[in-house]
Amino acid sequence: MSFIPVAEDSDFPIHNLPYGVFSTRGDPRPRIGVAIGDQILDLSVIKHLFTGPVLSKHQDVFNQVHEGLRQHQERIWVGRSQDGRIGTAPVYSSQRERRRRRVISAFPSEPTLNSFMGLGQAAWKEARVVLQNLLSVSQARLRDDTELRKRAFISQASATMHLPAAIGDYTDFYSSRQHATNVGIMFRDKENALMPNWLHLPVGYHGRASSVVVSGTPIRRPMGQMKPDDSKPPVYGACKLLDMELEMAFFVGPGNRLGEPIPISKAHEHIFGMVLMNDWSARDIQKWEYVPLGPFLGKSFGTTISPWVVPMEALMPFAVPNPKQDPRPLPYLCHDEPYTFDINLSVNLKGEGMSQAATICKSNFKYMYWTMLQQLTHHSVNGCNLQPGDLLASGTISGPEPENFGSMLELSWKGTKPIDLGNGQTRKFLLDGDEVIITGYCQGDGYRVGFGQCAGKVLPALLPS
Amino acid sequence: MSFIPVAEDSDFPIHNLPYGVFSTRGDPRPRIGVAIGDQILDLSVIKHLFTGPVLSKHQDVFNQVHEGLRQHQERIWVGRSQDGRIGTAPVYSSQRERRRRRVISAFPSEPTLNSFMGLGQAAWKEARVVLQNLLSVSQARLRDDTELRKRAFISQASATMHLPAAIGDYTDFYSSRQHATNVGIMFRDKENALMPNWLHLPVGYHGRASSVVVSGTPIRRPMGQMKPDDSKPPVYGACKLLDMELEMAFFVGPGNRLGEPIPISKAHEHIFGMVLMNDWSARDIQKWEYVPLGPFLGKSFGTTISPWVVPMEALMPFAVPNPKQDPRPLPYLCHDEPYTFDINLSVNLKGEGMSQAATICKSNFKYMYWTMLQQLTHHSVNGCNLQPGDLLASGTISGPEPENFGSMLELSWKGTKPIDLGNGQTRKFLLDGDEVIITGYCQGDGYRVGFGQCAGKVLPALLPS
Repeated sequence: MSFIPVAEDSDFPIHNLPYGVFSTRGDPRPRIGVAIGDQILDLSVIKHLFTGPVLSKHQDVFNQVHEGLRQHQERIWVGRSQDGRIGTAPVYSSQRERRRRRVISAFPSEPTLNSFMGLGQAAWKEARVVLQNLLSVSQARLRDDTELRKRAFISQASATMHLPAAIGDYTDFYSSRQHATNVGIMFRDKENALMPNWLHLPVGYHGRASSVVVSGTPIRRPMGQMKPDDSKPPVYGACKLLDMELEMAFFVGPGNRLGEPIPISKAHEHIFGMVLMNDWSARDIQKWEYVPLGPFLGKSFGTTISPWVVPMEALMPFAVPNPKQDPRPLPYLCHDEPYTFDINLSVNLKGEGMSQAATICKSNFKYMYWTMLQQLTHHSVNGCNLQPGDLLASGTISGPEPENFGSMLELSWKGTKPIDLGNGQTRKFLLDGDEVIITGYCQGDGYRVGFGQCAGKVLPALLPS
Repeated sequence: MSFIPVAEDSDFPIHNLPYGVFSTRGDPRPRIGVAIGDQILDLSVIKHLFTGPVLSKHQDVFNQVHEGLRQHQERIWVGRSQDGRIGTAPVYSSQRERRRRRVISAFPSEPTLNSFMGLGQAAWKEARVVLQNLLSVSQARLRDDTELRKRAFISQASATMHLPAAIGDYTDFYSSRQHATNVGIMFRDKENALMPNWLHLPVGYHGRASSVVVSGTPIRRPMGQMKPDDSKPPVYGACKLLDMELEMAFFVGPGNRLGEPIPISKAHEHIFGMVLMNDWSARDIQKWEYVPLGPFLGKSFGTTISPWVVPMEALMPFAVPNPKQDPRPLPYLCHDEPYTFDINLSVNLKGEGMSQAATICKSNFKYMYWTMLQQLTHHSVNGCNLQPGDLLASGTISGPEPENFGSMLELSWKGTKPIDLGNGQTRKFLLDGDEVIITGYCQGDGYRVGFGQCAGKVLPALLPS
């Protein structure tokens, strides 16, 4: 129990304690915080309380930016655009504001979770114990320090969330058997739905890191090249088959050096925590471009993640037995410990003029065929170096029933079955103004470990002037 | 003419002036320099001489790291690994050294060219004029300042080169028609060698940024999953079909904001300069994994680039007419100005025990079908945000004759024709200990604009203990 009141259906009880990066109107400098109830505990204010053997030497991973240092950096870093990285690129209020954001977003010492992720499990466990103690109703240290409490807690309602980490590389897997099967049936045939390699390795591809944005960032309908009529030449225009994909993703911890694979027995040590993800997809662009080198512009116009990173320690109580894998994978991919998680997921769609969002999909992370341990190990088996802040995503999470399908492509079965949104509205794919809101939580006994929201609204295509 | 002596066959006359990041034993802090003859001009020492309207306000893009600032940063950034980013990951001398390098590599103010790239064309042109004046035999400012010259020039022989930029995202295209045709014939058939989309758009895919390393970094033969016998299950082991790919790549300048495409009329303003690239490829791993999402672990174990970035201004005199494109691309991809470049390329292979390297390929960048303007414009057409330091590569550059083929897969025609290295040695694919050295230059009238070397040696696979 925490001295901070937490509603029973809150995503953020003391059992969760997810990490994020936030700023406020009063203090626009992004800093690291932990969600508790409807509050944020600002770690830059209480970093001196991390006095354990590991973190006492590294309290600066929770550091606040110093104004003077930022001035210095502004001169160095002006012009290095990292638009998109902080998820606010499309909404600059002015050239000056844009430049300021550029600097702050590119600002090397902007608090991100990368450094903390890089410290590894010992630091993560130590931080969690400290935080659970500080927030406990039975501990006086923070509870009774009115002055410190005043500075340390901010209401989530008054905060702006940023990307939790600088994402060096982003990889998207394809690890839901039902999703791969559905796509295979739609684009090939029932007999050869799964590719021959699919049951032997977690198929994945490199995604675009620069266009990963934080929940709330509007997504512009992409322009591009597509071939709607197989008998005619390709055309240039706005995407007509805009889709969402229900995914989850995890952030990498310390990672490995180039040329030195991570064995599956050590994979867990390199998984920091998880977020919700919407892998926006332009089906018509994707269909025309993706053979033979894979998805490219059909995906790289935007990928949305939720701002709070839920630590693996908070998720372990919700581990369930892994799916039986037949054929048995090669030994380098085999592990016994349960690493499949019972996380309830839902996708909600709110069109313009709709009074409330309609739930179009209910799925669960437990439907994954390949585990995160297998994904991370496979990713590094060739010596590829994974780094703190790298983002590895699940791929679309579809379950056995039609209501569990994680994309509109599947829900509308290639646009053949309109999806009912209630009060007369239907969708096959996304319309301008549609907002897609993904939520997820683990149900504990009298509490939830939740992920908050992964939301984004579709802006109309920007037609070239 | 420069007062620094430059041999006629030197890659680095005053017509070139490529930018790089280097350090020396005497001063291990990486800093930005310009190559001239066999020397490096240290821009951190002469940055006060950039007094033009643009750079006078931004001399710090050529800044040297301040020890004090680094100390401050060390505390913040310990543990954030960017192994590979600086291309020296595999050769740490100790844990302490490893950690020190981690810090330096992750160190936000480590000189890279990102900030300079971000300033745009006006800054690039201004810097080039200043440098050509300072280095001119007819200009006294630097020529006659013995004390400053002593500090400003370092011999290339005594310098260690680093990655020129922090690469946010790396994209690899597939823009050589001969290469795509060769691969199509080998893996499909002569009639359908080219995919239907190939002549309509520059096909490309997202590559792995973390494993892009600088010339000289050894490349570890990857372990992985492959299926050598179609009738048997896949196996785990060391890659047996290790290949090189002759490519070139360009670094992006200012770039664009998420959701705002770059029209082809402005594409040139976002291309900073070019390097040589070896896209190491594990053909057996690639073949088993790449359908349907594209190349992944078959490529991500290492990609080598040359350290000196040759500015586009130095290459414009070597522009030749673009190849005729039939069918004519969609208007968003059409441009008239010549943006195809006559750059002589060669690939040399030196096996262990060979007294000198054998040339196995002679090609030319002019064999590209799609131009860099088309690649950059297509990449951003969906609103994908490109950023300073992003690396966009050509794909394997193969010409019309067998000797112009840019990979061993093509040179040995899928391993059916051994490649003769002279004195009895042959190769189908790479052996441990083989060193691959790519060179390239434009031939001017009595001078060359060259790229130096893109070299890497194959280390034996690291068998799991």
